[in-house]
Amino acid sequence: MPMQTIRQILSITPLFKGLTPDQIDDITNIAVERKYRRGESIFMEGDEADGFYIVGDGQVKIFKTSLEGKEQILHIYGPGKPFGEVPVFSGSQFPANALALVASRILFLPRKAFVDLISRHPSLSMNMLGELSMRLREFTVQIENLSLKEVPSRLASYLIYLAREQGTDDRVTLDISKGQLASLLGTIPETLSRIFAKMTTQALIRVDGKQIHLLDAVGLEDLAAAGKLAE
Amino acid sequence: MPMQTIRQILSITPLFKGLTPDQIDDITNIAVERKYRRGESIFMEGDEADGFYIVGDGQVKIFKTSLEGKEQILHIYGPGKPFGEVPVFSGSQFPANALALVASRILFLPRKAFVDLISRHPSLSMNMLGELSMRLREFTVQIENLSLKEVPSRLASYLIYLAREQGTDDRVTLDISKGQLASLLGTIPETLSRIFAKMTTQALIRVDGKQIHLLDAVGLEDLAAAGKLAE
Repeated sequence: MPMQTIRQILSITPLFKGLTPDQIDDITNIAVERKYRRGESIFMEGDEADGFYIVGDGQVKIFKTSLEGKEQILHIYGPGKPFGEVPVFSGSQFPANALALVASRILFLPRKAFVDLISRHPSLSMNMLGELSMRLREFTVQIENLSLKEVPSRLASYLIYLAREQGTDDRVTLDISKGQLASLLGTIPETLSRIFAKMTTQALIRVDGKQIHLLDAVGLEDLAAAGKLAE
Repeated sequence: MPMQTIRQILSITPLFKGLTPDQIDDITNIAVERKYRRGESIFMEGDEADGFYIVGDGQVKIFKTSLEGKEQILHIYGPGKPFGEVPVFSGSQFPANALALVASRILFLPRKAFVDLISRHPSLSMNMLGELSMRLREFTVQIENLSLKEVPSRLASYLIYLAREQGTDDRVTLDISKGQLASLLGTIPETLSRIFAKMTTQALIRVDGKQIHLLDAVGLEDLAAAGKLAE
């Protein structure tokens, strides 16, 4: 990827919104491109970190695993999303695993050079505070889902969230596999399939491959809030 | 509380570590003292936020509730800990509830004045980035616990965490009630009591009121990692 393209990616990364062209140049100068194959590990929990990453092209999952091999997805990120920043600002090790779900081009930003930049550019530090706060907000929702909601409610919440993200009312496109969706919602694929079937029978949704038609907005909102699917 | 005392609290708050006396003065000038009775709400999820808080004296719990009244504790904080910062940097509403567990003196820092300070003092923004990162790290552990670990394993992890926090090897002091501990670990008091009893029978711990003696460090580490309590 020529230098110009790294700069283009950085210019449309929300983390760098509002920065001047000179500031974007400074960041471009420290960014390093890395390529990953589908399924390739980017880092493992406990690895020493010397910087963080931004998705250029592709898709990355951030996840935890148990000793028995069970997996909990924390995030799935596409172009423009930063990941792995926690050890830039606290501790020195990555708190989770990162893996490329498809062939991906990733930008790496070395810790020391980035911290130098952030201390010179207050708007960059405000953007980073915004990014970390947004992630804390998402985690409180994920903890609420895992602890206080049943799986049908988590799925309804996720479909409503996707509809907002995709700017649609009556239809969403799943951009991850059903297996990954199960892991994101803290369940197993068999349970998720049963819930999809039951929600279809109850005319809440209609599944058409990767497209999910949302047939009953009020019913889905109720399910997301109350947590129980009628028998 | 006289002005001097607010300044003393701020001087020993880790968030403000490394700041100059002048910078601490600036923060003292914007801080407002508020008092809360035991059990009094500080803010509710969804409330509009116009600033964040620091525990002066007392103890605060940050938590989510379900429609059915089930509760999941996210954090329990004592003196020197900031809370409620998320809407200072993203969105405008608190993502969870905060309540004083005991009579508490709390410092309130108004959003706009604090953001002005942070953009003038890079070391303050680096400290805040460290604080939010540490909390992201804690949330990844909590999600892992809820999703991938059984309750005995969560309890063993928590006891090991407390021992590190309290700088002890063989004994920890619970600073929250058993009911709160159950909520923090995502379970109910009855289940927690059964697990305390079983771990006592297996000579992993001995419970003496608020004191928990850790009798078998290796056994506790194994339980924390592997997640199953032997039958």
